[in-house]
Amino acid sequence: MAVNPPQLSAPLPVPGFKIGTASCGVKSPEEKGKRTAIMLLTCEAGAHAAGVFTQNRMRAACVNLGEDTLINSAANIRAIIANAGNANAGAGGMERTWAQELIEAAAEAAGVSANHVLSASTGVIGTPFPIERVRQGVRDAATSLSPDGWEQAANAIRTTDTFAKFASRKVGEYTITGICKGSGMIHPNMATMLAFIATDAPLHAETLQPMLKRAANCSFNCISVDGDTSTNDTLYLLSSGLGLGHEGLDAEQAVAFEQELTALCIDLAQMIVRDGEGVSKFVTIEVTGAVSEEDARTVGRAIAISPLVKTAFAGSDANWGRILSAIGNSGVAVNPATVGLKANDVTILENGNLHSGYEDADGMTVFAKVEFTLHVDLGMGNCSSTIWTGDLTHDYITINAEYRT
Amino acid sequence: MAVNPPQLSAPLPVPGFKIGTASCGVKSPEEKGKRTAIMLLTCEAGAHAAGVFTQNRMRAACVNLGEDTLINSAANIRAIIANAGNANAGAGGMERTWAQELIEAAAEAAGVSANHVLSASTGVIGTPFPIERVRQGVRDAATSLSPDGWEQAANAIRTTDTFAKFASRKVGEYTITGICKGSGMIHPNMATMLAFIATDAPLHAETLQPMLKRAANCSFNCISVDGDTSTNDTLYLLSSGLGLGHEGLDAEQAVAFEQELTALCIDLAQMIVRDGEGVSKFVTIEVTGAVSEEDARTVGRAIAISPLVKTAFAGSDANWGRILSAIGNSGVAVNPATVGLKANDVTILENGNLHSGYEDADGMTVFAKVEFTLHVDLGMGNCSSTIWTGDLTHDYITINAEYRT
Repeated sequence: MAVNPPQLSAPLPVPGFKIGTASCGVKSPEEKGKRTAIMLLTCEAGAHAAGVFTQNRMRAACVNLGEDTLINSAANIRAIIANAGNANAGAGGMERTWAQELIEAAAEAAGVSANHVLSASTGVIGTPFPIERVRQGVRDAATSLSPDGWEQAANAIRTTDTFAKFASRKVGEYTITGICKGSGMIHPNMATMLAFIATDAPLHAETLQPMLKRAANCSFNCISVDGDTSTNDTLYLLSSGLGLGHEGLDAEQAVAFEQELTALCIDLAQMIVRDGEGVSKFVTIEVTGAVSEEDARTVGRAIAISPLVKTAFAGSDANWGRILSAIGNSGVAVNPATVGLKANDVTILENGNLHSGYEDADGMTVFAKVEFTLHVDLGMGNCSSTIWTGDLTHDYITINAEYRT
Repeated sequence: MAVNPPQLSAPLPVPGFKIGTASCGVKSPEEKGKRTAIMLLTCEAGAHAAGVFTQNRMRAACVNLGEDTLINSAANIRAIIANAGNANAGAGGMERTWAQELIEAAAEAAGVSANHVLSASTGVIGTPFPIERVRQGVRDAATSLSPDGWEQAANAIRTTDTFAKFASRKVGEYTITGICKGSGMIHPNMATMLAFIATDAPLHAETLQPMLKRAANCSFNCISVDGDTSTNDTLYLLSSGLGLGHEGLDAEQAVAFEQELTALCIDLAQMIVRDGEGVSKFVTIEVTGAVSEEDARTVGRAIAISPLVKTAFAGSDANWGRILSAIGNSGVAVNPATVGLKANDVTILENGNLHSGYEDADGMTVFAKVEFTLHVDLGMGNCSSTIWTGDLTHDYITINAEYRT
């Protein structure tokens, strides 16, 4: 059960892009027809592209291939091919071959060069990749290409997600549409986070890359256990830039674009938290008063990943001692005498002391809510960061201890 | 329910030391007489001492005072006073005053100077410290001082521990006896780890300190989420050195002593893991083939703290993909193509490839055991480290989400 999943409007088509999906039985031949698991996105002209990849050292081959392709062809990307059901990771000697064959199948189906195709895979790891069935799926997906395929694409890349995740935003005349998948606080079941975003705003790859990195840092990198990335995490941003030929937006337009891109990434990232496995609460952690933004993020993450804090959320227990301890464990040089803590409007700590007016019952009332915000003021500087996270529940244990996906 | 708690022999008295305990109702006056929660350890001459303290930045005042006392008087320690039931942490402006008053009460009761007394507190945090009741408890503890009080002391410092933890070893004619408390994989309920070790082996404080640090690094710092230290974690080692006046052991004797000290610390540390809240399995993680010992320890810890790995342990699921991902997330520069993995004698991965003879059922058989060992070979160097950890179960969630201690 997701926590307050948003009512989503239909995603907007993006000029220059088409999407097709197909079912091919990735997990087993019998699965074919029951769910789609192949997504092919094509761009009619060469798109400019940017990518952000997992920091996990055990990277899947498709991640390494994608990074290589961006290095060589970031200004001329023609397609993204993605599949769910099998991550093609931890697969040993054949992994890279299969990843390359997936790309070649997509290139052939889309009628473009394999050097201009990006790929992403998600699902179980350590299982041989069913390349023959997938190849047929890629061909089938190519027959359904349509500018309106975004929602179907969001469905095709789902694994344990309980709802399809997509969002669109307008920046002047331009459109940004993104889809993502991921159902985890902490990437349960190796639940890779995948996100694909497309726009027709004319931005050069050299502009897109740092912009995407910044947007990811304020969104996908701010949800719960971001440090615990899977082997396959991938975020791609493509600009078709039709008409203006990637000559770029002016400075003001670029700022407006980045704002909307960041907002869209936050929308998608929050959907992942809301759909986290076993999550029953959605908690926003605002850290202010830090010496640097990185410090603020580190403190926020330390709170968000603490099993003790997460179980306190689950138990509606305003256990501020655990929060204080998590702050102290972040590795950031905090000063116990300047820390402040609020839960929504309830002040708990001021300058390291329990607030004189604080009543435990007031804190409990906030922690009992399905959504609430913790405000942590480190009292040391002017930098801040916001992290979104969920709780740690019996359902999480049930999901992850009692079956294998 | 602890996992295979060891059958403990009675702890050996250590020449030069006496211990008294008392009940005083730390949590509430009504609790008095129901459980002991005060421990006073005295040394008839000035003991040489060493200490290892929490790395948490939100340190309790008693930790800071203890460190100061060691700096000034490591060669002349006369007592340790400890209490359970209230950690005197996160207590605001009065915290340091109460910590100092606890020390003064112990000094008065033991007839020594407060400058030569160490202290430690464990229990709930953020609650006013009941200094009057504790003071009476300290006086009462002083009336029961005996060389044979070690087991009672191990009981007095328990919080959520399900059994008293103590161990003794002999090094030639000398004795080492230690007690500890802590019931957590990850310091649940702020379950501070406290350990007090005493010996009559004549070792100077300047020798004891680095020796204790090394022993802690191979024991208390190798259990599960050691990074998630509480505000009060404290380990003290005292040498009464009677007779030889701290003139020291010869080099060979010192090596033998350090071996036994380390073994004793490992005994105690493993008891803490076995008593971890909700733990149903005891897992040893041996990491070999690392470039440095620190790398090996970091990889082992990354496996031990991963909720996905811990739930796989709980579910008896030989989910090696999660282990591989945790290794990749450790931050250590590992090479996916050289990693090997065994569960007990079952080879799962060799040089990054699934072992040709591996059957999932064989892995499952090992993971179904109450105790087993994972062998991770990074295949990059000659350094190694061993980590001990437990699983993550429904009981853990129940304990930490559903009540507050």
